[in-house]
Amino acid sequence: MRFKSMFLNTNVRLCVLRYAGRHFSSSSSRLSKLGGIYPPIPTPFSSSGSVAYDKLKENLNVWNNHDFAGYIVQGSNGEYPYLTNSERVEVVYKVKESIAEHKMLIAGSGCESTSATIEMSNAMAKAGADAVLVVTPSFYKNQMLSNALYEHYIAVADKCNVPVILYNVPGNTGINIPIDTVADLSSHPNIIGIKDSGGDISRIGLIVHETKSSESFQVLAGSAGFLLASYAVGAVGGVCALANVLGNEVCELHRLCLAGRWKEAKALQHRLIAPNAAVTAKYGVPGLKAAMDWFGLHGGQPRSPLQPLNELDKRSVRKSFEENGFL
Amino acid sequence: MRFKSMFLNTNVRLCVLRYAGRHFSSSSSRLSKLGGIYPPIPTPFSSSGSVAYDKLKENLNVWNNHDFAGYIVQGSNGEYPYLTNSERVEVVYKVKESIAEHKMLIAGSGCESTSATIEMSNAMAKAGADAVLVVTPSFYKNQMLSNALYEHYIAVADKCNVPVILYNVPGNTGINIPIDTVADLSSHPNIIGIKDSGGDISRIGLIVHETKSSESFQVLAGSAGFLLASYAVGAVGGVCALANVLGNEVCELHRLCLAGRWKEAKALQHRLIAPNAAVTAKYGVPGLKAAMDWFGLHGGQPRSPLQPLNELDKRSVRKSFEENGFL
Amino acid sequence: MRFKSMFLNTNVRLCVLRYAGRHFSSSSSRLSKLGGIYPPIPTPFSSSGSVAYDKLKENLNVWNNHDFAGYIVQGSNGEYPYLTNSERVEVVYKVKESIAEHKMLIAGSGCESTSATIEMSNAMAKAGADAVLVVTPSFYKNQMLSNALYEHYIAVADKCNVPVILYNVPGNTGINIPIDTVADLSSHPNIIGIKDSGGDISRIGLIVHETKSSESFQVLAGSAGFLLASYAVGAVGGVCALANVLGNEVCELHRLCLAGRWKEAKALQHRLIAPNAAVTAKYGVPGLKAAMDWFGLHGGQPRSPLQPLNELDKRSVRKSFEENGFL
Amino acid sequence: MRFKSMFLNTNVRLCVLRYAGRHFSSSSSRLSKLGGIYPPIPTPFSSSGSVAYDKLKENLNVWNNHDFAGYIVQGSNGEYPYLTNSERVEVVYKVKESIAEHKMLIAGSGCESTSATIEMSNAMAKAGADAVLVVTPSFYKNQMLSNALYEHYIAVADKCNVPVILYNVPGNTGINIPIDTVADLSSHPNIIGIKDSGGDISRIGLIVHETKSSESFQVLAGSAGFLLASYAVGAVGGVCALANVLGNEVCELHRLCLAGRWKEAKALQHRLIAPNAAVTAKYGVPGLKAAMDWFGLHGGQPRSPLQPLNELDKRSVRKSFEENGFL
Repeated sequence: MRFKSMFLNTNVRLCVLRYAGRHFSSSSSRLSKLGGIYPPIPTPFSSSGSVAYDKLKENLNVWNNHDFAGYIVQGSNGEYPYLTNSERVEVVYKVKESIAEHKMLIAGSGCESTSATIEMSNAMAKAGADAVLVVTPSFYKNQMLSNALYEHYIAVADKCNVPVILYNVPGNTGINIPIDTVADLSSHPNIIGIKDSGGDISRIGLIVHETKSSESFQVLAGSAGFLLASYAVGAVGGVCALANVLGNEVCELHRLCLAGRWKEAKALQHRLIAPNAAVTAKYGVPGLKAAMDWFGLHGGQPRSPLQPLNELDKRSVRKSFEENGFL
Repeated sequence: MRFKSMFLNTNVRLCVLRYAGRHFSSSSSRLSKLGGIYPPIPTPFSSSGSVAYDKLKENLNVWNNHDFAGYIVQGSNGEYPYLTNSERVEVVYKVKESIAEHKMLIAGSGCESTSATIEMSNAMAKAGADAVLVVTPSFYKNQMLSNALYEHYIAVADKCNVPVILYNVPGNTGINIPIDTVADLSSHPNIIGIKDSGGDISRIGLIVHETKSSESFQVLAGSAGFLLASYAVGAVGGVCALANVLGNEVCELHRLCLAGRWKEAKALQHRLIAPNAAVTAKYGVPGLKAAMDWFGLHGGQPRSPLQPLNELDKRSVRKSFEENGFL
Repeated sequence: MRFKSMFLNTNVRLCVLRYAGRHFSSSSSRLSKLGGIYPPIPTPFSSSGSVAYDKLKENLNVWNNHDFAGYIVQGSNGEYPYLTNSERVEVVYKVKESIAEHKMLIAGSGCESTSATIEMSNAMAKAGADAVLVVTPSFYKNQMLSNALYEHYIAVADKCNVPVILYNVPGNTGINIPIDTVADLSSHPNIIGIKDSGGDISRIGLIVHETKSSESFQVLAGSAGFLLASYAVGAVGGVCALANVLGNEVCELHRLCLAGRWKEAKALQHRLIAPNAAVTAKYGVPGLKAAMDWFGLHGGQPRSPLQPLNELDKRSVRKSFEENGFL
Repeated sequence: MRFKSMFLNTNVRLCVLRYAGRHFSSSSSRLSKLGGIYPPIPTPFSSSGSVAYDKLKENLNVWNNHDFAGYIVQGSNGEYPYLTNSERVEVVYKVKESIAEHKMLIAGSGCESTSATIEMSNAMAKAGADAVLVVTPSFYKNQMLSNALYEHYIAVADKCNVPVILYNVPGNTGINIPIDTVADLSSHPNIIGIKDSGGDISRIGLIVHETKSSESFQVLAGSAGFLLASYAVGAVGGVCALANVLGNEVCELHRLCLAGRWKEAKALQHRLIAPNAAVTAKYGVPGLKAAMDWFGLHGGQPRSPLQPLNELDKRSVRKSFEENGFL
C-alpha cells in the first residue's frame, strides 16, 4: 500500500495535487533538518492548579542557554491530557513568545478524533508552532489497525497548515503504528518524521531503512535511554525528557554521536540510562518534576490524578542521578 | 486502607461530614437499586459528521419500548472520546428530553484529569444525568496506581452533584482498579457502584464480596457475554452493548436470572456470546453500528479514525447473529 | 474446519476408522461423566529433594475421605516441569496404588513435542491413568497458531490409549487455544473435554455452546475462583488447587450448584475467592504447600527454582483463609 | 544485593571459597573473550523424525568456513524443548566432533528445575561444551521473581564444570531477568556473560554499565536485528539466527562495528533487519529452516507441533531476502 499504488484512488490523487498547490514542499524544506535535541517540556502549575505561565517562561530562560534544536510543547511530559483545549493552545502561544528565533517549536496536537486533531493542529500552528506532533489515537485499541491509522494521519496531514510528525508511544497508548504504515505515510509531503518512544531498536532501524526514499522524512528517538543506539541506526535527533534537567549532557551525547566519537558517546550514554528511566518509565512526570526542582527549574506538582512522588520514590530518583555523578 | 481508617486524615473527615450536609444519603437512596439492563447507546452522526440528534431520538423511541432500567450515554460505545465537550453535554440533554420518566440516565463523564472530570460530571448532571459513570484515567499508565485512582475518585465523588459509578474497562484503558481500592471507594456515600467490563468473573465475585458492607454499592456487568455469570456471583444488572440491538433478549436473560430459571438462562446466554463478541471486542463500535442498521435503528458510520466495517467483516458479524437465530 | 470437513483428508478418515476399531467409544463411555471436583495434587519432596512417596500416600489417605470425583496428578500444581520423566510416571503409579477404586486418575502428560507427549501419555496410561490432561505446548509462542495446536492434539488423541483432556492455562503458557480449534477438536472421539484455567467466563460459556454437538465433550473449570460461574454456564466440574486444603467446602460448592441452590452457592463461592487466589495466581505452589502444612497435610518445600514463602507472604496467605473463616 | 553484601551469608562465602579451589578463574580466562558471532544452529531431522546427525555435520562443514567465534547448540533455534535429554547431549557430542579446534561450543542446557539444569549442564560439558547457555526457567511465571532467578543461577554456576552464560529471551519465556539481578550474578566467577534477545536496547546498555566492574562478564546481542546497536552500547558479539544463512554478512557487520566503520555498518544493518525478523520473530524455526534450504544447507522440517511454512508464508520470507539483495 505504498503511496505510488494509491494513485489508483482518485481522492488521494486529488489530495496530492492539492498539496503541491499549497506549497508543502516549501514548508517541508523549512523543516528539512529535524536533527538535534528537543526537551519535551513539562507544564508548571501554580499552587491553585492553574498553568503557571510565569514559571514556564523562567524555565525557558534557562533552557534557551542550551544547544537545543527546539522544544516539544505538550508531548506526554506536558501533561497535555490534563489541559483544557484553550490551555493547550495558550501554552504554545506563551512558549513562542519566549523562545529564541532559531529554535523549533513543535507542539503536540493529537486528540482521539481526526477532526479534533486537525482543529487543534491548526490552532497550535496559528499560535506559533512550526510543526505538530500527532500521537496515535488509542482508546479503541482493537480498531486502531493500519487502515484506521493511515486514514487518520493522511487526513490530518492533508489539512494541517504546518508539517506533521508521527508520534508512536506504546507505553502510554498500547499502540504501535505498523512499520509498513509508517513507510506509506512517509511519502506524504506534509509528514516529515516520526518520534518513536518504544525503545525497540530493530523497529527504529527498519523505519529508517523503509522510509529512506522519502528525503524529507526523519526519525527522532523518543528517549535519552536509547539515543546513541538510535543515532547508530540512522535517527537524526531525540526528544528526551532527561534533557529538561541534563540539557548539556544530552546535547553533548548528540555531538559525540554526530562526530563519530562512539567510545566517549558510549560512556556518556551509559551514565544517562538510569536517571533517564527514573524520570520516564519508572516515575514519569512526577519524577521529572521532582528532578527539575533539584536542578533549579520550576518542577512542582503535577495535576491530579498524577500524584507527587513520596519521599521513598524521590530518594530512588535522586540516587539514580547521584550514582552517575549528576548530583 | 478502608474508609474507617481514613479518619486519621483530617481532610477526609471533613469531606465525610460535608457529605452528610449535602444529603448524599438521599441522592443515593434515589438510586439505591441500579438493578437492570442498560444499553450503552451509540452516537449517530449525519453524513457531514455532526451529531444527528434526530436519529438519536428515533433510536430512543425504539429503545423506550424495552424493559431497560435506563441508558448509559457516552460509555465507550458512545464514541465519547471523539465528541467535543459541548457535544458530550448536549447529547445528555437531548437524551433526557426523549426518555421515559422512570428510566435512569447515566452519563459517562470521565476525563483524564480530576478537575475536568468534576466539571464534566456536574455539567452532565445539570443536563439531566441521574448518575455519572467515571472511567479510570489511563494515559499515564505506570502512574495510575491505587493511590492515584483513589484520590481521583474521592475528589470526583466529593464534588459531584449526582452519584458516581466507577468504570473499569481494561480493554480500552489498560488499567484495572485494584479490588482493595474498589472496596475502599465503596464506603464513600456518593459512590454507588461499579461497571466492570473486564470479564474476569473471579474479580467480579470478589468485588461483590468485598463491598458487601456498603449497602448502596452495586455491581454491573459490563457486557452481555458474561451477564449470567455476573448475576450468579452477585451483580445486579448489566451495561450491554448488545442490548442496543437485542433488547428483548438481554432483558429476558435478566428476568430469567432474577427468577432463578438458570437452565433457560444458560441456553439464552450461550446464544448471546458470539453476537456480543462481534459487536464489542472483535469489531467494536463499527460492528455495533453495522448491526443496528440491520435491526431498524440508525447505526451509520463512526467518526474517524474509527472506520466502517468492510464487507468481509460485516459478513462475519452478520453470521454470528444468524447462526444463533437472531437474523 | 469442523471434523466433518476433514473427511476430505484420507489420513484423517483412516484415523477415524481406526478409532472405531480400538473401541474409543467404550473408553469414552467409561469416562462419560467427568463431572465433579478434582484436586490437582502437589508433589511432596523429602528434605533431600527427592519425591516423598510416603508423604504422598499419607496425603491421599486424607483426600480419599472427600467426595472428590478423582485426582489430577501432575497438573501445574504437581510441579511436573521439575520432575524427571521417570518420576512423572512413578508418581502416577504410586497414586494409582493409593486411591479408591471409583476415583478417576487423570494424569498431566503434556510435553513440548508431540512425540514426547504421546510417549508420556501412554506411559502414564500404563501406570494407571484413566485419562490424560495435555497442556498446550508453549515455548514457540508465535508459532502455536490454531493449525499447530490442532495437529498436535489430533496426533496425541489418535495415538493415546486413554482419553485426552485439553488443558488451557494461559497464565503459565501465554497461550489460549482458539475456541474454534477447541470446537474442531471436540469432535475427535478420544478427546473428552477441556480444563480451562484462564478465568474468562465468556470463553468458557462459548466453549460449552460450540461443543454441545459432541456429547462426550465436557468442560472443567480450572480454578475454584470461578467454579460457580463456570457451572452456571455449563461446566460439569472443577480442577481446584484449593480443594487440596478445603476439600469439603469445594465439594459442597459443587453440590449446591448441582442442586440449583444458587444463593447459598454464591455465599460460599464469595468466601473461597480470596484464599483460592492466594494459593494459585498470587503465591502459586509455594502458597499452596504452606497452606497444606496448616491443614494437616504434607506440604513442605517446592523444588528450586520455586522458593518457599517468606514469613510476610505466609501471613498474607494465612490472612486470606482467616478472614473468610477457614482458619 | 550485590555480591559483596552476600558475605554475610555463610553458605555463599563457602561457595566463593570453593570456586577458587576449583580454579574457576582459569576456566574463565579461557573464555575471557566471548566476542564474535555465533549462529544458534538448528537441529535437522530425517524424514522419520529422528535427529539427522549426518546432515548436521554437512551443515557444520559449510559453517566452518565462516569467521564465526563458535556455535550455540540448542539455543531456541535448536528446538531443544523437542529433543529428549539424550538427544540434547548427543547433538553436543556430534557437533564437538565436527567443529574446528579454535571455535567455541556453547550448549543450551537450561531446564525448568535447578537440579535438571545442573545435570544437563555437566552432561553437555562432558560431551564437549566449552560453556553453557542457561535460559530462565519460566513455567511458574508469577514466582520467577529476582530471588528465585538469583538462587537458580547461583546454584547452577556453583556446580557447573564449565562457565555459565545467562539467557534472557522474553519472547519465548515471558520472563525478563531484572537488571539488578544480572548485576548481582555478574560477580560470580563462573558466570561469564548474558545473551539478551529482548531487543530493549536501553536494557542492554544498562546491563553493560551495571556489570562493568566484573571484568569477565560480557554481553551478547541475541539477534541480528539489533546487533549494531548492541555493539554501540557495549556488547561484544551476537548470537544470530540469521548467521546460519547469511554468515558472511553478519560477520562483516561484526567487523565493521569493531573497526568503527559505523556508516557502512549502518547500511548493512538496515538490510539485515527484515530478513532477520522473517527467520526469528515472525516465522521462527520453520522460517529459518525454509531459508536454509535456499542457501544450500539442510533445513527441512521442524518437529511437531512446529509446522513447516505454507507457501504464502514461504513467499513472505523469501521476499524479505530478495528485497534486500540476498537472494
